[in-house]
Order: sequence, then structure tokens, then C-alpha cells
Amino acid sequence: MPPFTVTILGSSSALPTLTRFPTSQVVNLNERLYLIDCGEGTQVQLRRFGIKAGKINHIFISHLHGDHIFGLPGLISTMALGGKKGELHIYSHSELRMMMEQLMKFINEFDDFKVVYHPLNFRTRAVIFEDSKLVIESFPLKHRIPCCGFLFREKKRELHLRGDLMEYLKIPIKERVAIKNGADYLHSDGNIIPNADLTFPPDPVRSYAFCTDTVPRKQIIPIISKVDLLYHEATFCDNLRDLALKTYHTTSKQAAELAAEAEVKKLIIGHFSSRYKSVSPLVDEARSVFPDTFPANDGERFDV
Amino acid sequence: MPPFTVTILGSSSALPTLTRFPTSQVVNLNERLYLIDCGEGTQVQLRRFGIKAGKINHIFISHLHGDHIFGLPGLISTMALGGKKGELHIYSHSELRMMMEQLMKFINEFDDFKVVYHPLNFRTRAVIFEDSKLVIESFPLKHRIPCCGFLFREKKRELHLRGDLMEYLKIPIKERVAIKNGADYLHSDGNIIPNADLTFPPDPVRSYAFCTDTVPRKQIIPIISKVDLLYHEATFCDNLRDLALKTYHTTSKQAAELAAEAEVKKLIIGHFSSRYKSVSPLVDEARSVFPDTFPANDGERFDV
Repeated sequence: MPPFTVTILGSSSALPTLTRFPTSQVVNLNERLYLIDCGEGTQVQLRRFGIKAGKINHIFISHLHGDHIFGLPGLISTMALGGKKGELHIYSHSELRMMMEQLMKFINEFDDFKVVYHPLNFRTRAVIFEDSKLVIESFPLKHRIPCCGFLFREKKRELHLRGDLMEYLKIPIKERVAIKNGADYLHSDGNIIPNADLTFPPDPVRSYAFCTDTVPRKQIIPIISKVDLLYHEATFCDNLRDLALKTYHTTSKQAAELAAEAEVKKLIIGHFSSRYKSVSPLVDEARSVFPDTFPANDGERFDV
Repeated sequence: MPPFTVTILGSSSALPTLTRFPTSQVVNLNERLYLIDCGEGTQVQLRRFGIKAGKINHIFISHLHGDHIFGLPGLISTMALGGKKGELHIYSHSELRMMMEQLMKFINEFDDFKVVYHPLNFRTRAVIFEDSKLVIESFPLKHRIPCCGFLFREKKRELHLRGDLMEYLKIPIKERVAIKNGADYLHSDGNIIPNADLTFPPDPVRSYAFCTDTVPRKQIIPIISKVDLLYHEATFCDNLRDLALKTYHTTSKQAAELAAEAEVKKLIIGHFSSRYKSVSPLVDEARSVFPDTFPANDGERFDV
């Protein structure tokens, strides 16, 4: 199967610390890179973890709080200095564009690539990106300002051909393409050979859901149901549940409860309040509800 | 003498590296902190080097290129979260205000402190800040966009009283204040005792000049003449003199020549192009002209 990974670039909440930058992640599906959120210092983290900024062509912004966007101008400036070509697509609230166009005045002119803005809809689930391998959807979260999560889902894969039968029956190449996509085969002797006899099942499709800056939200459960990997914010421990609610955040226990109810395979928690010098209490609390919980740490890479 | 130091927070040019953030420095005069420029990640560097962001009340911005300003929104956001009170004064090109006011929409509301913008004049030398201890002037540099340097100069200090004579002559406290400021003393016997007999000379005043993002500019020599410490950009070695000129920067040799001609006491060079994995060639080149040259390194502190 092609690699499908998530690298954590920043795992703190609004206040960065010496070991945790503000929110940013890179999703890598088969060497195509997708950036989620872009807190201050994202370009430095990319460099630190050996990821080429210029290879990123799509950036997804969950919401317009500073700790999720203040790395954008520097990143784009560095892309321009690095000679990036083509288009950079940014998916975000429509207001980002105005801010960025103000800021672009302070970056050296660049002509070789173009920034294309795609406004997100924060009221309903929607497909926002699609290519031959991947579908990305946004879905509403609930924070102090419009905010959404992102669901990365591989597309249904082709069936695997049974090579022995292809040879034996001398099936032509163009027929094989149809069989990979599910067609039966009409043999020259008039018999129809069912697809199931000619193929093995496709690799399973993998999925990653990213949910940050939100109150715990039952409505997302059908959307994130059974994903291979769920990132959910867990800003506070559950003894600060009132503060979490007041600031529209989630506690570690609440994140784990969502993961359990959605029957996801693995949970990453992050967006930790800087009050936690160690995140062990947050991890322990989540694991007591959902054992397959792991903390986001800057530089760490998770397989989806 | 009260401490007067400069701490380097960032020493790279436009592209940050793993060891060099973009331009920013903190000047500390007797525990009052003045920030010069604010590249992306300045707030992280402050934290790394143990400097409290909340203690900064004055920020001086040389020019509006991204690598000198993109740390401002995050820094201000962090100040707000840290409960800063009072006023934060920013001295910059007038256009910064518009950009910042756009960005402030993306920061949590804060009421406890106010940002006050002071537009700079980029055509002539001008006093832009003054208190009982310090005068700060701006002066024009020459870059692709309006840009200025900053001169930090201690104010003339009080004379030191000769304690022995104060006691012997029983000079009252209020007269002593006048003597510290240069007055002679009229003794009760009718004799005038000249100030020079009653005092020792004051401590020398110290001065620091900051010059970045500029072609080498002879016009600044009278302004930076004999300063104790000069920071001058040296983006390239002299074999790239044409590139330096084209991009409105200075070579290491040219920076050293300015330092020598202005008879400064010590030179710091910085704003290094990321092409230099080691800055030794830049330092060696400058030292061949001006021996008391030191490289800016992130986290390093220089006494003025």
C-alpha cells in the first residue's frame, strides 16, 4: 500500500512552548503533501523534520484563530524564495483571503506561483478536494468562531487481478482494466466468468479525521465513524471541563469518549494547554476510556 | 553602570534556518526592554532565551519586509494571553498599522493593553523616543522599500559627588542635587566652590546602532560615529558584491569598512544569507578590515 502518514508539526494550543509549536500537520499520501493549519513557525518545523515546503500544493485551514494561521505569510514567502511553481490552493474561511492579500504586500513579489483561495462552507459536510486517490471533506465543528474538521479518505481501490488466470485465459490488456473496476469477463467460448473468480479484493481504504478547536460534538460521530486515525483536540484534563466548555474546547476524557463511540482505530490527542508541563495526565485520562490513544508530539509521524 | 545589552533573537536573512531565525533583537537598558524588528518566531526565541515578552513595551520596526514583521501578530497575541497591561508602542512605517488591524481580528479580544502606533519618518534623522535614561533616534537607510536604522544613546549622566567633601562641608541634600547636575556651591562663608572640586566625572554614555537591510551608506557615518556597538547587516561575502547591490544589501567587507571609517568600538554582523552553512567566511572577511567583528548568533548577548 502507498504510504499514508500524518506528521505533527505543532501540538500546543494558543501559547507555543519550547517543545510544542502551535497547530500544524502534514498529511502525506503517496508523496503528495497536504498541510492542515499553519501556526507561527510552521516553515521552521517543516525544515526541522525534513519536509520540503515547496512540495505542498494544498493547505486546509480549520478556522481563523492566530495560532492556526500566523505561519502562512512566512511559509508562502519561503515558498516564493524557493522558486515554487504552479498553484498553491488554500481552503479556508473566505475572510482569510483579505488578510493574506494585505500581508502579501510585505513579501517580495513572486510571479512563478499563484495562490488560489477556496472558501469553505461551515454549515454542512462537503467534499472540498478530490483526485484519483483521495477525497477530502470538511464538516462543521463548534468553536467561538466558524470552524471545521477535515476527513481524508482514500478512494475505493481497484481490485487485484489474478495474474495466473489472466495468463491462462489470455485476457487482453484493455479487458483487464475493466475487470480491475469490477466487470465480469465474456470468454471467447461464450461463457461469462464472474469478476469474483478473476480478482482478489482491493486493499482496504484508509481514512484520517482531524478535529480541533471544538466542544465535543456528537454530530460528528457518523462522519468520523470507524476511521483508522482520529486526531481530536484535548486542550484540558476533565477537571477543567467548565473551562473547556467556556472556551469551546474539549477535555481529554471527552475526546476519548467520542473516539470510543465512533469506534475509530486509533486516537491522537493534541492542542494541549501550555499549563501542562507533561501531557501524561491528559494521555492517562484518555487511555482510561480509549486505550489506543497517543499524544501528538512535534515531529512525530503516525501511519494512518 | 546599569546593564546595557543586546540579545540576538534572530540572525538569518529572509529564509530562516534551523539555527537562525529571521531578524529580531532585544535591547536591555537597566531592565527596560526594547525590541528591534520581529521576524516569525520571535515569541519562541524570547521564551527560549528566558526573556519575558510581557516586559516589552516598545517595538521598533526597521522596514516592512516579512522577515522583520511576521512575528508581531503572534507576539501580541501571546502578550494578551499573558495578561499584559498598559500600552505597547510600535514605531514603524505607517502602513504597518493597517496590516496589524486586519490581523487583530484573528486574535482573541484583549482589553487590558492597547497598541499605540508611531509612524516613522524615513527621510531624515529624528528622535523617536526619549526618557530619563535613553534617547532613540531613527535614520534613513537605503533598501528596496523605506527602511531606517536605530541609534540607542544613553543620556548624559549625572556627575559623581565627592562624598568626603559633602560631609566635610555639610552640604545639604537639596544642594547636592544641583551639584550633581553641574552647579557650583556657595559656601556660608561667602566663598564659591567650583563644581569641578566637588565632583568626579560622570560615567561615559554608551551607544548602540542597528543597521539592517541596506546598501552600504556613507551618509550614516556621522550618525554612527564612535558608537560602542554597531550591528550592521552583512548578508553576503564580498565576492557577491553585485548580488548585494542588486538586492540592496551589504557585503561583510563593506560593513567592516563602514565600522572602521566610523571608528566604532565593536561590530556585530548578521542577516546572513542561508547559503552560508558556516558564517566563518563572513567573519574572517570582516575581521581582515575591522578586527573587532563578531557574528550575531541566536541567543547571544552583547554588552554595549
